[in-house]
Amino acid sequence: METTLPIRKNDSTKPLLQAARGEKPAHTPVWLMRQAGRFLPEYRAVRERHDTLTMFTTPEIAADITLQPLRRFPLDAAIIYADILLIPHALGLGLTFVKGEGPRFARTIRSAEDLAWLSRQAEDVDAVMARMDYLWETLARVKPGLSAEQTLIGFCGAPWTVASYMIEGGSAHGEFFESKMLLLREPDVFRGLMEILTKLSIRYLEKQVDAGAEILQVFESWGGALTPHQYMTFCAPYTRRLCEALRKRVPLIHFVGESAGLLDPVLDVPSDVFGVDWRQDLAVVSRHARTQTRALQGNLDPLLLYAPEAVLEERVRATLATGRAHPGGYIFNLGHGIRPTTPIESVERIVKIVHER
Amino acid sequence: METTLPIRKNDSTKPLLQAARGEKPAHTPVWLMRQAGRFLPEYRAVRERHDTLTMFTTPEIAADITLQPLRRFPLDAAIIYADILLIPHALGLGLTFVKGEGPRFARTIRSAEDLAWLSRQAEDVDAVMARMDYLWETLARVKPGLSAEQTLIGFCGAPWTVASYMIEGGSAHGEFFESKMLLLREPDVFRGLMEILTKLSIRYLEKQVDAGAEILQVFESWGGALTPHQYMTFCAPYTRRLCEALRKRVPLIHFVGESAGLLDPVLDVPSDVFGVDWRQDLAVVSRHARTQTRALQGNLDPLLLYAPEAVLEERVRATLATGRAHPGGYIFNLGHGIRPTTPIESVERIVKIVHER
Repeated sequence: METTLPIRKNDSTKPLLQAARGEKPAHTPVWLMRQAGRFLPEYRAVRERHDTLTMFTTPEIAADITLQPLRRFPLDAAIIYADILLIPHALGLGLTFVKGEGPRFARTIRSAEDLAWLSRQAEDVDAVMARMDYLWETLARVKPGLSAEQTLIGFCGAPWTVASYMIEGGSAHGEFFESKMLLLREPDVFRGLMEILTKLSIRYLEKQVDAGAEILQVFESWGGALTPHQYMTFCAPYTRRLCEALRKRVPLIHFVGESAGLLDPVLDVPSDVFGVDWRQDLAVVSRHARTQTRALQGNLDPLLLYAPEAVLEERVRATLATGRAHPGGYIFNLGHGIRPTTPIESVERIVKIVHER
Repeated sequence: METTLPIRKNDSTKPLLQAARGEKPAHTPVWLMRQAGRFLPEYRAVRERHDTLTMFTTPEIAADITLQPLRRFPLDAAIIYADILLIPHALGLGLTFVKGEGPRFARTIRSAEDLAWLSRQAEDVDAVMARMDYLWETLARVKPGLSAEQTLIGFCGAPWTVASYMIEGGSAHGEFFESKMLLLREPDVFRGLMEILTKLSIRYLEKQVDAGAEILQVFESWGGALTPHQYMTFCAPYTRRLCEALRKRVPLIHFVGESAGLLDPVLDVPSDVFGVDWRQDLAVVSRHARTQTRALQGNLDPLLLYAPEAVLEERVRATLATGRAHPGGYIFNLGHGIRPTTPIESVERIVKIVHER
């Protein structure tokens, strides 16, 4: 499914937007998932003074963190410092970040009663959005800090991925037992939850575009926790609605974790850029019939940034060669978020190699 | 790569061996990964009286546990009750099973010095094998307990999967950081470890065949933790050698966890049966050029055994229809080990549906 994208002024100066439109820019654009975060000492310094939720919800802090990686490396994009769980937080699920354990919710959604409660919380969409005003302000603060070549990326978690945290009460740690139980045993409750998340996510992303986001990434981090049949039945219809709504405004990157087994149904979801995880060969994805007219993004294994210089360089060049040979556009990225202890020199090296011509 | 298998007497009465040879038996054979274990109350009763290592290394106990699921369900195979870490245990790595945490090694292999120590431990292959005499005795005890239609499955962990535990010192919990560091930074040490494991695993499986195993499964549980390039470079050459050596004796099942992104290189490793994990569509694997002349095994999501009866039945029938339509043989199984809290009625239901004609 192809959509004609509106011509937006300044697009021609931004390599990332050019690549997203399937063009070949003067240099290959590069950004790194989780670039605004834990691998930078200046980020860890901020974190010592504030708790995580304060960092997300204070525009001065969030805008500063968003720009931190761009002060060090000539990256082609800033991705707004935010979290995929800010919507459930705004819905009153009581989000906290437990050190070393990740996010935790005070409330979970596992029954018709829970869903009824959530529906009441979600009823007034404007009120829910107003609880996230800090985010649009963060975007507005970041925008002037970018050069004419740099692109501002907004994002959200895809409905299934966010739902899994709301059902589990935090990270699912690989199993997704409660999430799958709900989907298998109480499909109507599960679908009700997905409806709410889809509706709110559309508005959430629209407001990010209004505030200056030029491209959006939808993070389906836990797509690979579903079988292809479960993905098609319980997940894809909602992501499709989200992607279709937003592509009317800006280009959209659909990143799916562990998508190799889901490639056909995942690529049936319309997107401008497909974000490829590191567990598969970029060349195989590039040959897929449904990627011939869309751009690819990815997919270096983040652990390669710990490899000796020569090994890293060889893998970056191999990935780059495959990406550049793709018939659509290509954006260099990792195939998963950058790890907290990653050596900074490896990031410098990667950006330098990608920008060579 | 095709190998002509030797004609073995009684094969014709065993549906699982028929399917492994690409034939269509009178009924579709079925067994379940981890069938001898935690989901059975009679297993948990044994476990209350003995520690895990005693259960593996005491032939009377291990043989009894192996046969437990066959007393309840008309399964087509028994898989020997053993562990993929018995070889490193015999090498002196000091294996313990910590409740709720899984296996733990007292020693790890992370340096040239560690490898030198391990090489000395592995030097006398016969002595290493003698430390696992309990296993051949277990196999010999199980064999008379099987009907003429039932097949005895021996197994081992594939070298990379076993190596990852030896490097990490236990379960890698999803990240495999130390394993990948060794592979990327000390490839010669990593290869030395793989050489040792390959050599010992070949002998270990040969001894299982000598003791009565009629088919072998090689468990590459953590195949999907490697990128396709890493899999081809550091893993496939060793598994290939293992599989080629054993296929001279009996048919071989190659099961790989999260293999969707590795399908081309994984299927380049010769096997009679390819074991498919639940994260991909069996129909996609069935259409792959390299599976046209081999059998498939799999691949129901183990969490479906918690679904309502109608949902489970629909998914079993869908999987079965795809498997039976495969041009090679087909063995029904889960796409991962059965979970400890699985309802027993679901297993009864599955076996009944699979055996219908």
